[in-house]
Amino acid sequence: MEKKARVLIDCDDEKGLVYKFSKVFFDRGLNIDSNREFVDKEKGKFFMRTVVTGDFNIKELEEELKKIIPSNAHLKVIEPKRKKIVILATKESHALGDILIRHEAGQLDADIEAVISNHDVLEQLVRRFDIPFFHVPTEGLSREEHEDYVAKLIDEQTFDYIVLAKYMRILTSSFVARYPEKIINIHHSFLPAFIGANPYKQAYERGVKIIGATAHFVTDDLDEGPIIAQDVIPVNHRFEWRDMQSAGRDVEKIVLSRALNFVLNDRVFVHGNKTIVF
Amino acid sequence: MEKKARVLIDCDDEKGLVYKFSKVFFDRGLNIDSNREFVDKEKGKFFMRTVVTGDFNIKELEEELKKIIPSNAHLKVIEPKRKKIVILATKESHALGDILIRHEAGQLDADIEAVISNHDVLEQLVRRFDIPFFHVPTEGLSREEHEDYVAKLIDEQTFDYIVLAKYMRILTSSFVARYPEKIINIHHSFLPAFIGANPYKQAYERGVKIIGATAHFVTDDLDEGPIIAQDVIPVNHRFEWRDMQSAGRDVEKIVLSRALNFVLNDRVFVHGNKTIVF
Amino acid sequence: MEKKARVLIDCDDEKGLVYKFSKVFFDRGLNIDSNREFVDKEKGKFFMRTVVTGDFNIKELEEELKKIIPSNAHLKVIEPKRKKIVILATKESHALGDILIRHEAGQLDADIEAVISNHDVLEQLVRRFDIPFFHVPTEGLSREEHEDYVAKLIDEQTFDYIVLAKYMRILTSSFVARYPEKIINIHHSFLPAFIGANPYKQAYERGVKIIGATAHFVTDDLDEGPIIAQDVIPVNHRFEWRDMQSAGRDVEKIVLSRALNFVLNDRVFVHGNKTIVF
Amino acid sequence: MEKKARVLIDCDDEKGLVYKFSKVFFDRGLNIDSNREFVDKEKGKFFMRTVVTGDFNIKELEEELKKIIPSNAHLKVIEPKRKKIVILATKESHALGDILIRHEAGQLDADIEAVISNHDVLEQLVRRFDIPFFHVPTEGLSREEHEDYVAKLIDEQTFDYIVLAKYMRILTSSFVARYPEKIINIHHSFLPAFIGANPYKQAYERGVKIIGATAHFVTDDLDEGPIIAQDVIPVNHRFEWRDMQSAGRDVEKIVLSRALNFVLNDRVFVHGNKTIVF
Repeated sequence: MEKKARVLIDCDDEKGLVYKFSKVFFDRGLNIDSNREFVDKEKGKFFMRTVVTGDFNIKELEEELKKIIPSNAHLKVIEPKRKKIVILATKESHALGDILIRHEAGQLDADIEAVISNHDVLEQLVRRFDIPFFHVPTEGLSREEHEDYVAKLIDEQTFDYIVLAKYMRILTSSFVARYPEKIINIHHSFLPAFIGANPYKQAYERGVKIIGATAHFVTDDLDEGPIIAQDVIPVNHRFEWRDMQSAGRDVEKIVLSRALNFVLNDRVFVHGNKTIVF
Repeated sequence: MEKKARVLIDCDDEKGLVYKFSKVFFDRGLNIDSNREFVDKEKGKFFMRTVVTGDFNIKELEEELKKIIPSNAHLKVIEPKRKKIVILATKESHALGDILIRHEAGQLDADIEAVISNHDVLEQLVRRFDIPFFHVPTEGLSREEHEDYVAKLIDEQTFDYIVLAKYMRILTSSFVARYPEKIINIHHSFLPAFIGANPYKQAYERGVKIIGATAHFVTDDLDEGPIIAQDVIPVNHRFEWRDMQSAGRDVEKIVLSRALNFVLNDRVFVHGNKTIVF
Repeated sequence: MEKKARVLIDCDDEKGLVYKFSKVFFDRGLNIDSNREFVDKEKGKFFMRTVVTGDFNIKELEEELKKIIPSNAHLKVIEPKRKKIVILATKESHALGDILIRHEAGQLDADIEAVISNHDVLEQLVRRFDIPFFHVPTEGLSREEHEDYVAKLIDEQTFDYIVLAKYMRILTSSFVARYPEKIINIHHSFLPAFIGANPYKQAYERGVKIIGATAHFVTDDLDEGPIIAQDVIPVNHRFEWRDMQSAGRDVEKIVLSRALNFVLNDRVFVHGNKTIVF
Repeated sequence: MEKKARVLIDCDDEKGLVYKFSKVFFDRGLNIDSNREFVDKEKGKFFMRTVVTGDFNIKELEEELKKIIPSNAHLKVIEPKRKKIVILATKESHALGDILIRHEAGQLDADIEAVISNHDVLEQLVRRFDIPFFHVPTEGLSREEHEDYVAKLIDEQTFDYIVLAKYMRILTSSFVARYPEKIINIHHSFLPAFIGANPYKQAYERGVKIIGATAHFVTDDLDEGPIIAQDVIPVNHRFEWRDMQSAGRDVEKIVLSRALNFVLNDRVFVHGNKTIVF
């Protein structure tokens, strides 16, 4: 029976990698639907994403590949299927709403398992879509206590990724450490410009002529995780900072959805503090 | 009591227009919040949009201005307030959904009075937002008969603009003639490229490296109305036409919402087959 | 001795192509520096560009590959080296000038063998750079006669590509047929919008909000050759058509140089009326 | 005799400014060709740029306007004419070359009086265009001594603006203070990202997906002067930092020339650390 798998390999670069991997596919009669490689020469790292189709057993293919990959390699053989996400949001609805509409239209390759928020502002919107909404107020809780509640809720879900759709709380290192390469954030600036609070106000004060947004994996280092996607729009002197914020919403939601799409299709490798997007 | 009005004037260009209009504002002690002018020298046309604030009566200001404007001038003195729109859609939800989310967030300067569709696919989405949805099937109806039903429904609403959010029916001249400068459409191509059916397939066949979308007023001449806003995104040989369509959705919805925002804020003059957007 | 070659293959798609080609590289101990493939599933076509390094003989590698490629395949094994170009221009200097400056800075991977023009306006500019300039006036010549002179001059040069840097003459089919996939043109519009004469005037009349430029291979079908690169810039109602033309110059020159760079680095496959750019 | 003047006014905002200024134009029978205003409400500042035509004496118009402007106002009445610039460069030719080509084509609204460089690399290029080139080596000189030589050369020229076309020396406060609002720089990053040395290397290390360039007036505060223009281009993981640098050159030169064009046409107001570009 015709099957499809995404094979993702990253390892130290050495001669013959493409040959060895393609030999495995060839020997099993698999078709290569698409194939992308990249070698970071400076770091001596090899990255490959191959989509194969044919009559095969995924477990067996994985075992076969394991035999030949270098010892320090990371290998994933993934059957393409809808993933599951949990969304964290606060009060703003544009990024969340964009995902909800895509989801409703069947254009998001993921199910939304739950939306968790530190406010109840977005509850009505989420409930309109019959998606579970959890309000975790912060009142009277330490940052750690609040995060424990949130983490508990997250862990009760089945999920592949956690999407911060304008979640306006800074996450602790220990929270981030629970979900390595699992948390995707949209930062409301063209990183690394305007790191920190209220980037639009910073942008306004600086008098920039372009503003942007950055989707990235969340790591311990605030606003410094591997960038997945970025985009920008022009502004001018007529924009007060709230106008920049308003204009910025369109970029934010589009960039987040674009990054999410890459991630859900297993097109992203994290490579140190960078990404490779095939 | 502090009031605000948007004054829009277009007329044949002549010496002293700015002076004469600003004198009226000055004599009444009004403050000019913002002021934009444009002269089309080729056509000898003058356009001005001034936002004034102060203690004044809108009717009286309009009368005063009427006394001094050239005889062929168009004058509008508009109190800024939420407008009302009716949306026409078909099956695709991205453009409609974007407007619904903005509306829900209070970020659309309009109330959505109703959504009318030739299919029932979007009914659930619209009802989620407690907005009236009317399904007008086309079965067994001539184009004119169908439009009569649609027009009847539209006319039962109070509305300032009709928004075609991916309404995939060609409108007759007589329908368009009922609503001059009232119908805003999003065309799924970078007009005037790829006029007509399935622009994404055309774009794919042509092998373009950029695709776009165009928001425009609808006139008798299909795909030829005054353009309000356009934007583009890069594509490449890896995009099949459905990928282009999918990528195009983001541009479509953003361009439509941007154009709608201009129109709802009375920032757009129609000037022959063009627009002036202040 | 360490050598480098670019291997370009296009052929009917079939199972095992990547394996077979990478086996040849592996068996000879070659390193794969970079590797890009694309399969046009609709047309059943396979495209690959691989850069290999190692100690090898280019002729031998080519022979080896020839043995295993499908019978209808196109194979090129290219040693990376500076190519040679002939430039045709008319009166405008921006696209030509951009190439001259890159050339002078050693940032163009080609030598400019000659500039040929139907006017003498650009002679001084070209001579400033000590590059041969040939003026072929059109007076008293039929289109064919004029082209014969131009072709004769071209054929006296050693060249890989002919670059039309705003050459404002329409080429005949027979001229184009002499240099298949050899002529690169910059078209002053975002094709396929505004085909034909004075696109900026057309764009102005149409009231577009974005203008662009298109670099493409020249084929028999005017303005319809395979697109290599495109880009755009925003305009607005304040732009008269000469302003659009002026703004357009920047896009034109950048797009032409970008396309030229792709071509000079053997990154472009022509595929029917499209290109694949790796 | 028909004359033209650009009237630039910035002052504290107050009621009736447009009226008062347009009255002066009206009373003298002047035509308003174009008129742009902006009010910074937060700071209470008014900016106006009006182009008037008619039969008038510039000195007299200026005197007339002086009588009615608020006491702290800045007023300029400028006759449109070619300005003069001095260019400082180092080794890279793309930004300089772009200006030279525009100049040669008569598309730069300025004469290039001289090019001054701390290296002699660009001498040949500049001499090709018959423009004076001055080499001021830094060897054996303190920063201040070197700047004194440069300043002396600059001051011997007649000039309106000093253009830093990739001049890779940090200027001292005292040098900058000599030429307030006279020095335009192109910074090879999308400020305020990657302030400081080798922005492309920084961008590469950070793994950004977009790089840009910023043209700004030079003030005492390095990389912090008022931004005139910015633009960006997409990059990806395949770009090593030298590729980013190479791609960045196109943005740099275009952004610098765009900013220069604004400045030469008196379209830029400096407003604290920002610009207003009409």
